[in-house]
Amino acid sequence: MSGPGAKWSAPVAVFDSGIGGLTVVSALRRVLPAENIVYLGDTARVPYGGKSRETIERYSAEIAQMLVAGGAKMVVVACNSATALALPRLREKLPVPVEGVIAPGVAAALEATRSGHVAVIGTKATIGSGAYEQGLRAARPDIRVTSLACPLLVPLIEEGLLDDPVTGAVLERYLAPLRSTDVDTLVLGCTHYPLLAPAIARAVGPSIGLVDSAANCAAVVARLLSARGLAAPGTAAGSLQLGFTDPPDRFLEVAGSALGLDTASVTVRAVPPLGQ
Amino acid sequence: MSGPGAKWSAPVAVFDSGIGGLTVVSALRRVLPAENIVYLGDTARVPYGGKSRETIERYSAEIAQMLVAGGAKMVVVACNSATALALPRLREKLPVPVEGVIAPGVAAALEATRSGHVAVIGTKATIGSGAYEQGLRAARPDIRVTSLACPLLVPLIEEGLLDDPVTGAVLERYLAPLRSTDVDTLVLGCTHYPLLAPAIARAVGPSIGLVDSAANCAAVVARLLSARGLAAPGTAAGSLQLGFTDPPDRFLEVAGSALGLDTASVTVRAVPPLGQ
Repeated sequence: MSGPGAKWSAPVAVFDSGIGGLTVVSALRRVLPAENIVYLGDTARVPYGGKSRETIERYSAEIAQMLVAGGAKMVVVACNSATALALPRLREKLPVPVEGVIAPGVAAALEATRSGHVAVIGTKATIGSGAYEQGLRAARPDIRVTSLACPLLVPLIEEGLLDDPVTGAVLERYLAPLRSTDVDTLVLGCTHYPLLAPAIARAVGPSIGLVDSAANCAAVVARLLSARGLAAPGTAAGSLQLGFTDPPDRFLEVAGSALGLDTASVTVRAVPPLGQ
Repeated sequence: MSGPGAKWSAPVAVFDSGIGGLTVVSALRRVLPAENIVYLGDTARVPYGGKSRETIERYSAEIAQMLVAGGAKMVVVACNSATALALPRLREKLPVPVEGVIAPGVAAALEATRSGHVAVIGTKATIGSGAYEQGLRAARPDIRVTSLACPLLVPLIEEGLLDDPVTGAVLERYLAPLRSTDVDTLVLGCTHYPLLAPAIARAVGPSIGLVDSAANCAAVVARLLSARGLAAPGTAAGSLQLGFTDPPDRFLEVAGSALGLDTASVTVRAVPPLGQ
């Protein structure tokens, strides 16, 4: 390290199994406009959400290793499945701070709920891990948690069916049971889901508020960079580099346009085998 | 090789990106009950159908290499996306016969159509490759082909929604336009789709017949083994070994039960990096 200046100017690295993590990038751009951000989506192996802990841990470690080798000053795991299953191992192995999307979502849900009954939706891997439930209970043992795996939402979002009767019917199927409970807070436990927030809000009705893990993660990252003296100084706009392990399809444009991100230029990067 | 006996008794290897290729296994068991079959589903990287040619070629070569190293006497590519994008390269590289699912489907469609207007449904990768269209036109230049990518069907099938209003609504969206054409033959260009055949038949109506690539592929494999003197002699029932690159989820049971396959015992195998 050549001095603290080098650290400040290093990029914040963000990764996801695919494109959903761009919701976190969009939130980071809003709260940290001066940061240089490098994004890497593992589209060659997307999705992670239906795969095993061992596979998700290995894929996450390989992708994070590429980002650290590229000089990242911190790594943001912008994927709930990878956060749920791989965050402890990444923190153990990586030489830079690592933040995920679950703890920020847990903190925001605890702050939001009045009834003490929180619902969480996510992929099979995220829900199966119990990570949100554990985080919520660790902070507040009397909390009640209803967890729902919603595996069809990512494919529907990636088809761009953000406001569509088919998506509405699937959401109704998954979420209608929540309307007859005292759940007052619904955690969007997958970084794709903010793209579906209006349809989800309609499905659960006005008495349930949504907690968006992307926005809360960005706020936590901002505090962490500031606390460790790693935040980029000044007001010059930071750069954004997008990389993927397989050429992304048309959904990148859909998502980029919905999120206000420039997706015109992307690089495709091969995953090297994990060092022993 | 110790003699022709060793070749006869070697297994037929079948691979797919995931579990859909079990429809081909089921068809092979019916027409070739004496064959030993080894199946390998690349569930650690499933699905292939939305990924690039380069990635699908590499994954297919890695999986096929594992099967040949295991002593397979032939390799069946039980995945339309892998057949569409990787079959020529596999045939070039592998020392055993390789059969895919597209040529058999093309032949069956040509035999079935009276109107000369055939429709094909499949993943984005399969439809984008134009492989069915090219195969159909090569045999019959005046044929008309309507190709439709149906990317939501695999996720719906893997959720076990084989007979469900949501699946019905998605099929209606994809397939209703076919009813006002003179299409009389619909090729199920994805090995998952036979699991949805009754719902697809309802969506297209009685004037369109379905061509199932799994059944047609099995018939072609049987002819090939027989022509090359590779068929297992005798009537003793062959064995079936199922392997996956990531532990399969509950859908394996759904599919196994729908297809009459014993899925009680499976092995999980890591993919070694491709030899140079």
